[in-house]
Amino acid sequence: MIETHETQQGPQPLVRIGMVGGGEGAFIGEVHRLAMRISGRFALVCGALSSDPDRARRSGRMLRLPEARSYPSYEAMIERELALPPEERMEAVAVVTPNHMHLPVSKAALEAGFHVISDKPATRTLDEAIELRAAVGAAPGVYALTHTYLGYPMVAEAIDRVARGELGEVRRIVVQYPQEWLTDPVEGEGQKQASWRTDPALSGPSGCFGDIGTHAFNLAETIAGVRVSELCADLTAHVEGRRLEDDGAALLRFENGARGVLLASQVSPGEENGLRIEVFGDKAGLRWAQEEPNTLWLMPTAAPHQRLRAGGGYLSELASARCRTPMGHPEGYLEAFANLYDLFADAVRTGTRSSALPGIEDGVRGMAFLDASLRSSRRESWTKIDTEQSYLD
Amino acid sequence: MIETHETQQGPQPLVRIGMVGGGEGAFIGEVHRLAMRISGRFALVCGALSSDPDRARRSGRMLRLPEARSYPSYEAMIERELALPPEERMEAVAVVTPNHMHLPVSKAALEAGFHVISDKPATRTLDEAIELRAAVGAAPGVYALTHTYLGYPMVAEAIDRVARGELGEVRRIVVQYPQEWLTDPVEGEGQKQASWRTDPALSGPSGCFGDIGTHAFNLAETIAGVRVSELCADLTAHVEGRRLEDDGAALLRFENGARGVLLASQVSPGEENGLRIEVFGDKAGLRWAQEEPNTLWLMPTAAPHQRLRAGGGYLSELASARCRTPMGHPEGYLEAFANLYDLFADAVRTGTRSSALPGIEDGVRGMAFLDASLRSSRRESWTKIDTEQSYLD
Amino acid sequence: MIETHETQQGPQPLVRIGMVGGGEGAFIGEVHRLAMRISGRFALVCGALSSDPDRARRSGRMLRLPEARSYPSYEAMIERELALPPEERMEAVAVVTPNHMHLPVSKAALEAGFHVISDKPATRTLDEAIELRAAVGAAPGVYALTHTYLGYPMVAEAIDRVARGELGEVRRIVVQYPQEWLTDPVEGEGQKQASWRTDPALSGPSGCFGDIGTHAFNLAETIAGVRVSELCADLTAHVEGRRLEDDGAALLRFENGARGVLLASQVSPGEENGLRIEVFGDKAGLRWAQEEPNTLWLMPTAAPHQRLRAGGGYLSELASARCRTPMGHPEGYLEAFANLYDLFADAVRTGTRSSALPGIEDGVRGMAFLDASLRSSRRESWTKIDTEQSYLD
Amino acid sequence: MIETHETQQGPQPLVRIGMVGGGEGAFIGEVHRLAMRISGRFALVCGALSSDPDRARRSGRMLRLPEARSYPSYEAMIERELALPPEERMEAVAVVTPNHMHLPVSKAALEAGFHVISDKPATRTLDEAIELRAAVGAAPGVYALTHTYLGYPMVAEAIDRVARGELGEVRRIVVQYPQEWLTDPVEGEGQKQASWRTDPALSGPSGCFGDIGTHAFNLAETIAGVRVSELCADLTAHVEGRRLEDDGAALLRFENGARGVLLASQVSPGEENGLRIEVFGDKAGLRWAQEEPNTLWLMPTAAPHQRLRAGGGYLSELASARCRTPMGHPEGYLEAFANLYDLFADAVRTGTRSSALPGIEDGVRGMAFLDASLRSSRRESWTKIDTEQSYLD
Repeated sequence: MIETHETQQGPQPLVRIGMVGGGEGAFIGEVHRLAMRISGRFALVCGALSSDPDRARRSGRMLRLPEARSYPSYEAMIERELALPPEERMEAVAVVTPNHMHLPVSKAALEAGFHVISDKPATRTLDEAIELRAAVGAAPGVYALTHTYLGYPMVAEAIDRVARGELGEVRRIVVQYPQEWLTDPVEGEGQKQASWRTDPALSGPSGCFGDIGTHAFNLAETIAGVRVSELCADLTAHVEGRRLEDDGAALLRFENGARGVLLASQVSPGEENGLRIEVFGDKAGLRWAQEEPNTLWLMPTAAPHQRLRAGGGYLSELASARCRTPMGHPEGYLEAFANLYDLFADAVRTGTRSSALPGIEDGVRGMAFLDASLRSSRRESWTKIDTEQSYLD
Repeated sequence: MIETHETQQGPQPLVRIGMVGGGEGAFIGEVHRLAMRISGRFALVCGALSSDPDRARRSGRMLRLPEARSYPSYEAMIERELALPPEERMEAVAVVTPNHMHLPVSKAALEAGFHVISDKPATRTLDEAIELRAAVGAAPGVYALTHTYLGYPMVAEAIDRVARGELGEVRRIVVQYPQEWLTDPVEGEGQKQASWRTDPALSGPSGCFGDIGTHAFNLAETIAGVRVSELCADLTAHVEGRRLEDDGAALLRFENGARGVLLASQVSPGEENGLRIEVFGDKAGLRWAQEEPNTLWLMPTAAPHQRLRAGGGYLSELASARCRTPMGHPEGYLEAFANLYDLFADAVRTGTRSSALPGIEDGVRGMAFLDASLRSSRRESWTKIDTEQSYLD
Repeated sequence: MIETHETQQGPQPLVRIGMVGGGEGAFIGEVHRLAMRISGRFALVCGALSSDPDRARRSGRMLRLPEARSYPSYEAMIERELALPPEERMEAVAVVTPNHMHLPVSKAALEAGFHVISDKPATRTLDEAIELRAAVGAAPGVYALTHTYLGYPMVAEAIDRVARGELGEVRRIVVQYPQEWLTDPVEGEGQKQASWRTDPALSGPSGCFGDIGTHAFNLAETIAGVRVSELCADLTAHVEGRRLEDDGAALLRFENGARGVLLASQVSPGEENGLRIEVFGDKAGLRWAQEEPNTLWLMPTAAPHQRLRAGGGYLSELASARCRTPMGHPEGYLEAFANLYDLFADAVRTGTRSSALPGIEDGVRGMAFLDASLRSSRRESWTKIDTEQSYLD
Repeated sequence: MIETHETQQGPQPLVRIGMVGGGEGAFIGEVHRLAMRISGRFALVCGALSSDPDRARRSGRMLRLPEARSYPSYEAMIERELALPPEERMEAVAVVTPNHMHLPVSKAALEAGFHVISDKPATRTLDEAIELRAAVGAAPGVYALTHTYLGYPMVAEAIDRVARGELGEVRRIVVQYPQEWLTDPVEGEGQKQASWRTDPALSGPSGCFGDIGTHAFNLAETIAGVRVSELCADLTAHVEGRRLEDDGAALLRFENGARGVLLASQVSPGEENGLRIEVFGDKAGLRWAQEEPNTLWLMPTAAPHQRLRAGGGYLSELASARCRTPMGHPEGYLEAFANLYDLFADAVRTGTRSSALPGIEDGVRGMAFLDASLRSSRRESWTKIDTEQSYLD
C-alpha cells in the first residue's frame, strides 16, 4: 500500500488544508480530521474553528495549530492565508460549520481561489445552492460535498453493477434513513447537536429531510443512476413544540419511469444510523445497508442471492481501490469518509473532480429535493423537482 | 400437548368442513388442508373443488372424499349437505376460490346456516365486501378471514406488546410486502396463479395491492392498534401489457396522528415473500419479518435491542399457546395458518369468534383500503378511507 | 400438490400405524403425530401410549383411538393387532418411548412382521444397537430412524452438493449442537423430560452426546459423505450431582483424511436448539443451521457467497420435493419431520427404504460414536469408532 | 472529542516512534501506521523499513521520512537515534517484521531504553518469549503486543460483563478463527505473505496456530477471565507439501473447571477473517464476532437475547471510550488497532501499561499455548500449558 500517490521523485506533497468550524463540542469536524489522517494526504495547517474567538483559539491549540494560523473568523483566515507565500499557504478549505454558514464560507473560499470540501447539505436553501453553483462555475478551484456514504467500497460496487446493466432496467427504489436520537425533545435539554439541527435559522427550513433525507436522496439517485422527476412527501414533527420536521416519507417518480419511496426519521427508537437502500430492476435487485457496509447483496431473478464483500477479488476497480485491508477486516464510516478525502486530494492535485466525488450538482439536487418535499408536504400534492428555482414562500 | 380441547368426556368432536375451490393445480387450497391437518380439529367431509366438474371429481377422489360428497358446484354442495342429518352434515365451509367467487360462495354458505372461513381478500370489491358484511350480520354462523400472518406467535406477541403500552404512543409504521414472482410477464406463459391474479375479472380492480397489499394493511392496523384514516398511493404496472398494477406504495396517516408507509411489489427480484413491519412509538420500536417469523425485535430507546423468540417462557399467553414445539424448533407458515384454523374451530364450537381471528370487519377495511388506494393513485391525491361506500367508477 | 402419491385408481391407501409411547406429558410423541398429519399418508389406528395403563387409556381417548385399540402395553398391541384381519391390522409401529425401550419394542415389532419407525437414538447402548441390526436384517419390514434434521430440504441440498463434488475434497467439518435447557439442575424439580434424559437407566450411559450429539454426528457424516474413523472426546457434567454429561466436545478424524470437531452442550444459555454445521472442501465451503433451516450457504473460493433458499427453482429434485410451499413461506421442524414420514410411507408401500431415510446403520454408527466418545473421554485418548463391538465396561 | 489527552498547557506532545519492518510489499506495517494516524498521538520519525537497504530507503522516502532517519537496519536505527538529543530522539519502536525478528529487535530496543510495541506473536518460540520476558522485566520501557482484537469496544464490554459476574461461573468457551486464504498452495506462487507465514525459519514451528490461533487463544483467556490449564490438539497441513499446519483444533480445559474448544483454519473457503467467540456461564452466555464487531450478544437464561451495540449509552466506561463516533457509524479493524495505540501512547506518557493493553505475559502465554499444542498434536495426548519451559524437541 505504501506505493500509492507517488511521483517519479517520491510521494506527492501533502495537501495543505484549513478548517472552518469543528471546534470544541462539534461532531463532524473531528470526523473530517480523522478522515484526513486516515487518508494520509493532508496537512491541517490552519483553522477558524469557532465563531467564538476564545473557543477558536483554545480549539486551535488543542489541534496543535500554530497560534498565528488559528484564526478568529473565516474572513480573517482567507485574508491572512492569501498573504502567505504560495508554497506555505493553505490550498483548500474544509467547511464543517452548521448549515447556515455553508454558503458564505464556501463562496468566499472559492472566490479567493481555494479548493473547498464542504459538509452536507451544500447550503441552507435551494436559492443559496443555486447561488453557490454559480460561484463554483466561476472559480478555479474544485468544490466537493461530503456525501459520506458514497465513500464506501460497496456503494461504489453497487453503482458499478447498476451501470453495467446487471439489474436490467431499474424499476423500483426504496431508500430509508431512520434514526432514534430525536425521539425525545432533547433540543430543550441543551444538547448542542439537537439544538442547531432543529433551529430553522441555523439548519434551514427542513429538519430531518435536510439532515439525513438529503443523504438518502443522493444515495438513491447515485446508485440507481436515474433522477427523481417528481415526488409526493409527507413531513411531520412528532415531538410537540419541535420547529422542524423529525420524520417524513416521500413517494418518488424517476425520469425513466421507475418508482420509489424515501423514508427518513429521527424519532425511530432502536434505529441508529440506519441508512439502507434497495434497488430492483427487471433482471436483479440489490441491497445495501450502511450499518453493515462491507456487504452488498446482489439478487438475480430465479437464482441464489449473492453476498458480495468488501475486499473480494471479484470487485470492480474503484471498489477495490477503496479497501485498505483484506476481506473480513471490517472498515467503516471513517474509512468511507477518508475515501472521499482521497478523491479530494486527487482533485486538488489534478484540478479535476472525479465523478465519484460529489460536487455542487449533487448539492443543488439535494436542495431541490428539499424544496420540492416541503412544498409537496404543505400542499399535499405531487410536486416536480426543479433545480433552477425555488418556489418556497 | 395431548390434553388440549378436551371436554369432561374426552376430546371435542372434529369440525366437519367442506371446501369450495382448491382442486388440481390450485395453491392455497392445499395450504388450507394442511392447516386443518396440523390443527387436528377438522374432518374434511365434502367439497366442490373445482368449477370444472371433471376436475372436481378427480380432485375429490385424490383427497379421498366419498364420491357422493364430491360436488360439481358450491350450490349443489350446500343443497345436498343441508339434506343430510345434522350430525353428519358439514358444519363449515372453507372458501379457497379465486377472488371473484368469494362473495357468492361465502354469502350462500352463511345464509344456509354454515360457518365460513375464507381466503383473503374477503371479496373482489368494496361494494361486495359491504354486501358480505350485511350477510354476516344477519347469519347465525361465524365468518373468518385467513389473514395468515396474524396466526404467527410473534405477531400475537407484537400485538400484545403494543396494546400493553410498551411502545408508548405509536408514531410511525412501515410495512412492506415485496415479492419477485411477477417480474417477468409470466401470465402470458400459462402460469395459472399469475393468470388469474392479473385478470381484473377474477381478481378485482387491483393486482398487487389486492393480493398482498391487503395483508400488509391488515398487519399494520392490527399490530399498531390504530386505524388508517387517509392515504396517498401510487400504483404502477411495470410489466408491459399487464392489466393490474404489480407494484405500489402508499403514504399513510393514522387516526391517532401516526404516519406510515405501505409498500407492496411483485416485481422485486430476490424478494420471496418479504412481508415485514416496523412500528415505532415514543418509547420503543419493534420489528418483525415473515421470513424469520420466530423472532420479534423489541427496541426500547437508549437500551439494548431485545430479541424475543417463539417458545420463550417470557411470551404472552396467546403467543405461547400458538407454539407447538420448544424454542429453537422453527415453526412456519403452515403452523401460522393452522393457528387460525384452531381459532376457527373454537369459534365453531363456541359460536363466538375471538378477536384474534380476523373477520368481516378486517375484510371490509381491506377492501376500503384498496378502494381508496385505487382512487388516490388515479387522482394523484390524498384520499380518505371509507368503509361505508365505494367511490370507484 | 394434490396429485402426489396417486395410483392409476386414485391415491394410495393410508398407512395404518400404531404408536408405542407418546402419552400424556410426552413431547416427541405429539411431534410424530403432527408429522404424520402433515404427511397426510398415515392413519393412527392404535397405540400403547404409556407404560401406565390408566394413562395409556386416557391418552388413547384424547387421541380418539377406538377403546379396543388403545392397549395397555406394546406386547398386547402386537398380539392383538396380529389377530385382526390384514386389511384392518396396523402395518407399522412408531416407537416414541424413552431410550431404554427402543430395543425391545422395535425388535418385537419387527419380528412380528411390522415396519418400524423409531425415535433416536436407535437403542440405549451399542450392544443393543448391534442386536437390533441383526433383528432388522432378519425381518421382512423396514426399519427407519427419525434423525429429524435429515428431513429438511436444505440438508438434502447440502448432501447433493457435496456428492456432486461442488466442495471438492472435503477437508474440514465443524458441527455444533448447543442448547440451554439443562443449565440449571431442573431434573431435581420434577421436569419429566429432564428426569429421564439424565437418568442412565432410561437414557443409557450418555446424556448430552446421546440425546443430541448423535444428531450432530449423523448430520456430519451424512452431509460430508465421509465417515469418522477415530475421535478424541471430552465429556463433562457441569451441573453438580448430574449423573450424565451435559456438555462435550470431540476432535474428529475422517476416513478420507478430513478433520473435524463436534460440540454438543445442554448448558449453554441463550442457545435454543442450535444444531449447525460447516463443511469445507478444497473448492468451496457450506454452512447450514437448523434454526434458519430454509437457507443453505454455499461459499466457493474467491467468489461471492451464495445464499440458497428452500423453494428455489435451482434446487435438486429431492430438496424441491420436500418443499410444500413456494420460496419465502418458511417451513420448519415439523415439516422436516413429516418429510421423513413421507419417505417412510414410500418405504412401507414399496418395501424398500430410500437412502434418504436413516435406518439401522445410522443407528449403529450413532451408538458406536457414543461408545467411542465415552471411552475416549474416560481414558483421555484418541479412540477408534468400531461398529462391531462395544468396549465399554 | 477535541479535548482528549490535553494537559493544563495544551495537548500532550506526540509520541515519537520508529518502525522496524513494514516496507514495500508488507501488510501489517501499513496497518500500524494507519492505527497511529487514527490515534493522532504519534509522529513517525524514523524507520528501518526493510532488511534490504535499497527497499528500506525507497520505503522511507515514500513515507516522507527524513533521509537521515531512514536506516538500513534496526541496529543502525537504535545506535543513531541514541545519538540524537532526547527531545528529538524516537521514544518508542514499532516492531512489524516477520516473526523471527521479533525477539532480537524488541530486545535490543528495550535494552536501549526505548518503549516497544510489537506485532504478534511475541516471538518465534516459547524459549524466545521467555527470554523476552526477562528483557522486559529488566528494561525501563513498556512492552506492548498488538493483539488487535482486544482493541474493539465490544471486546472491552465483553471483558467487563464477564468480570462483573453477569455470566455467572464460566463453564464453556468456544473460539474459532477460520480463514480461506491458504486453501490453495499459494506459497508456491510467489505470494509474499503466504511464503513467510508457511516457512518455519521465519514463522516458527507453527503455521495457522501461530498466525491466528494465538489471537483466538488470547481472546478466549482475556474475555473469559480464566486460564487454560491443559489442551488436546490436532494440527494438520491439508495442502500437500505445506511445511506448517494450515488447520487445527484443540480441546481446552480451564483452571476453573470450564471446558472449551479452539478452532483455527486457513483452508476454509468462504471464511474471511472469521474470529468469533462464545462464552457460556451458569447465568448467561455471550457471543462476539470480529466481522460484525460493533455488536455483542448477551444471552441470559430464560430471557430475550440482548443486542448490545458500540456507541450505546449503556456501555462500560472503557468500551465507550473506544468509540469515536455515535451508534450506527460502524468502526472497524483499523479503529480497534488505533485503540491499542491510544493505550500505548498513555503507557509511554505515564510509564505504566494499562491492563487493557496486552503485554509480554500475553506473549508468553501465546507461545506456551503453541508449544503445548504442537506437543499434544505430535503425541496425540492431553498436554499441560507451561509458561516456564519449552518441552518441544
